[in-house]
Amino acid sequence: MNKGIIRYTLGRIMLVEAGLMIFPLFIGLIYRESLKSIGSFLLVMIALAVLGFAAGFKKPHSMHLYAKEGLAIASLSWLVISFFGCLPYVLSGDIPSLVDAFFEASSGFTTTGASILTDVEAMNRSNLFWRSFTQLIGGMGVLVFAMALLPNTTSGSVNIMKAEVPGPSFGKLVSKLRNTARILYLIYLIMTAVVIVLLMLGGMDWFDASLHAFGAAGTGGFGVKNTSIAFYNSAYIDLVLSISMIAFGVNFNLYYLITVRQVKKVLKDEELRWYLLIILIAVVLISINISGRYDSVLSLVRDVGFTVSSVITTTGYSTADFNTWPLFSHIILLLLMFFGACAGSTGGGLKISRVMVLWKTAAAKVFKMKQPRQAVCVRVDGSALGGDILSLISSYFLIYVFLFIVQVLLLSLDVPDFMTAFSAVAATFNNIGPGLGRVGPATNYASLSGFSKFLLSIGMITGRLEIYPVLILFIPSTWRKLR
Amino acid sequence: MNKGIIRYTLGRIMLVEAGLMIFPLFIGLIYRESLKSIGSFLLVMIALAVLGFAAGFKKPHSMHLYAKEGLAIASLSWLVISFFGCLPYVLSGDIPSLVDAFFEASSGFTTTGASILTDVEAMNRSNLFWRSFTQLIGGMGVLVFAMALLPNTTSGSVNIMKAEVPGPSFGKLVSKLRNTARILYLIYLIMTAVVIVLLMLGGMDWFDASLHAFGAAGTGGFGVKNTSIAFYNSAYIDLVLSISMIAFGVNFNLYYLITVRQVKKVLKDEELRWYLLIILIAVVLISINISGRYDSVLSLVRDVGFTVSSVITTTGYSTADFNTWPLFSHIILLLLMFFGACAGSTGGGLKISRVMVLWKTAAAKVFKMKQPRQAVCVRVDGSALGGDILSLISSYFLIYVFLFIVQVLLLSLDVPDFMTAFSAVAATFNNIGPGLGRVGPATNYASLSGFSKFLLSIGMITGRLEIYPVLILFIPSTWRKLR
Repeated sequence: MNKGIIRYTLGRIMLVEAGLMIFPLFIGLIYRESLKSIGSFLLVMIALAVLGFAAGFKKPHSMHLYAKEGLAIASLSWLVISFFGCLPYVLSGDIPSLVDAFFEASSGFTTTGASILTDVEAMNRSNLFWRSFTQLIGGMGVLVFAMALLPNTTSGSVNIMKAEVPGPSFGKLVSKLRNTARILYLIYLIMTAVVIVLLMLGGMDWFDASLHAFGAAGTGGFGVKNTSIAFYNSAYIDLVLSISMIAFGVNFNLYYLITVRQVKKVLKDEELRWYLLIILIAVVLISINISGRYDSVLSLVRDVGFTVSSVITTTGYSTADFNTWPLFSHIILLLLMFFGACAGSTGGGLKISRVMVLWKTAAAKVFKMKQPRQAVCVRVDGSALGGDILSLISSYFLIYVFLFIVQVLLLSLDVPDFMTAFSAVAATFNNIGPGLGRVGPATNYASLSGFSKFLLSIGMITGRLEIYPVLILFIPSTWRKLR
Repeated sequence: MNKGIIRYTLGRIMLVEAGLMIFPLFIGLIYRESLKSIGSFLLVMIALAVLGFAAGFKKPHSMHLYAKEGLAIASLSWLVISFFGCLPYVLSGDIPSLVDAFFEASSGFTTTGASILTDVEAMNRSNLFWRSFTQLIGGMGVLVFAMALLPNTTSGSVNIMKAEVPGPSFGKLVSKLRNTARILYLIYLIMTAVVIVLLMLGGMDWFDASLHAFGAAGTGGFGVKNTSIAFYNSAYIDLVLSISMIAFGVNFNLYYLITVRQVKKVLKDEELRWYLLIILIAVVLISINISGRYDSVLSLVRDVGFTVSSVITTTGYSTADFNTWPLFSHIILLLLMFFGACAGSTGGGLKISRVMVLWKTAAAKVFKMKQPRQAVCVRVDGSALGGDILSLISSYFLIYVFLFIVQVLLLSLDVPDFMTAFSAVAATFNNIGPGLGRVGPATNYASLSGFSKFLLSIGMITGRLEIYPVLILFIPSTWRKLR
């Protein structure tokens, strides 16, 4: 293990975080906040700068990054930015408990959007801005991370390749990253800007519009009001956000393809079709299930459409309190939580491409029951997937299920009912935000114990990074010295 | 598809069922039951005999059985015996509703032990006997079925081979079956007889002792008293049944190995070791979790040990009302429901061998994260499993998960809470019996709708036959004529 490069890279990331804190500091100054509030950001920035320079001062012996170091850096950097990112909440007194603040910060950076705040509106503007801004940063991070794991970004089948985390070595990608990352970042930021403008046209001020756009872009879902999006009670805003959430749940490589005029490839993309089809089916099924509760079809479809977009893209904005919906709807929503958005998007979950491959594998098996030993052939976007990829995806699913069970088991020591425990893990491990039961959209994670909050924070980071980068930290051989 | 041989074989099975009904008829005569009660058995026997002779009268053109026909026969025969087996309940008036009676009969033949009876003690003795007896028959059926799918029954690795349902052609196994089946049946019946004697020594009369032994042998769990085993309130009976249940959850091939003095192989069997270890861990964890509710360690371990044995072997006898235990214990019990007993036993669930292979596959993957494309090597009983077997087990798991979700979704239309819906499917699909929530050990399935009862009945049969035989009935090409 090349520990030098890990230290060096983490130092760089701390400097970046210090730089990004200029934005909330600026907000604090605009709104003439107290010295305590502005000072807390200044203090953390100084600490980050000092530590960052110290760690990055000495260049490592070798600048070569193997996959192992790349994975370790990914998980450590999420831990480090979440830790330092939570300090302004603590120092300013907005979230006095460290574990609560860490939960809120990991929730932001992992674009989960789960909250322990019972009164969002009481927060300082600077902290409120920082909280939503972490989602935009986290979303960008996920895009780099996703790209770093993609051997190339032009073929449609990369979505599947992506599922093969951990893949390539970071090193050889650096030059490519510089090019493609810029384009993807540009697309990401332009889309965010468009959402801000559209929301302002709906009557939001620039502050609320920006923060909600950050939440949609990162598919995080932190709101500004205690009642989330229901506060605005505007069909136009619901529509804008529904479409934005769905758009940010699409594989960003497809947007890249559009910029290079390969629209045909986009239209033929199988993951995209599955994604849209699943959304449609879910909306229809839930609408039928709860139709008795609505007088007009329009308001029914508005609420259901918004909720489905919010859940499948793992955003977590809410208009209706879906906690009061019947069990059938709950189970559909739970399934969507597991499916998640497309690979290569800012959304979480298992990812549609994996669900698609798992489904196709099982279906192929059933239809070939009569030849039990015959190899299963699964096609995505027209080309057959190799057995090694199928086995990688199956293994991912197994490890996912195993870690899920462990979390539910540990959480059950604190939480009394199955629905709360199960959906809390589903909502954090898949980076959604609100769950059901005691952690539903109208309540939140405040009532959990410190242990549970810490557990779920680590779960959010593990889920965000698609498991392997975090697991690698726990394997002793990772830390053994190179001979 | 050779429909002739399916008709012919089903005819034979109906004759066998008619023959087996002599036992409850005999019980009815001993206890001088009403004409209605005795007559209902006579009537069904006559119907079975007439239909059986008619179906088996004309020999099929070819007596050759391919895997396809074998699988279809397995699922159809379980449907047919459950249907005719439920008629005495209906005709005698003990269970007037056909769907209720079908649920109770499938539950018996699949050795699930889930019940819709709110007052077991009000049942006629003949029906009560028949109800428990179906578990003994079902258990035998499972053993033949398991064997028919086993290429050979002497090597330890067959437990894994078994997981590859659907496997061999039935035809070539017939001669072998005759030999090995006799030995296994003998072991099965001797073990049942021993349990009867041990229970009688504990103060049960021959009727209760026999019926409870049938329930333990088939790992079914139908009781004779409304309060199940708690009625007897005897530590001795609890101990006898705990050990019996665990014994019937062991792969019967191991008992065969003991008879041919290959005890070493038995002691080295990996599935057996996992099975016993899992039981131990579960008992320890639950005991710690609920220790506050008991004054003495002995009664704590007695209740927990009994419950764990009952749940992991998918029997479903109850002494304590585990529905009132805390969530952590519930989740441990839910996990045991999924694990199930050993392959080649009368128990249900995923089977320990599959869980073991899935776990080893995931673990191997994690520890080889640095070589993402390297094939995973999994060893069981010392020898490496081929990639085809691993992929078969993964596919089985995927299909299992998919069918599980579908059932929970359909059930959620009827049931209001998640725990009830989830555990009802877990308890029937894995052939356990009582679930949690509204279908817990102190209540039962009576309150569900007819649709739900039918759904769960089909789920029991599907789970019992390890999915594929039932699925094959739904594939159109199965019924296409041979060219």
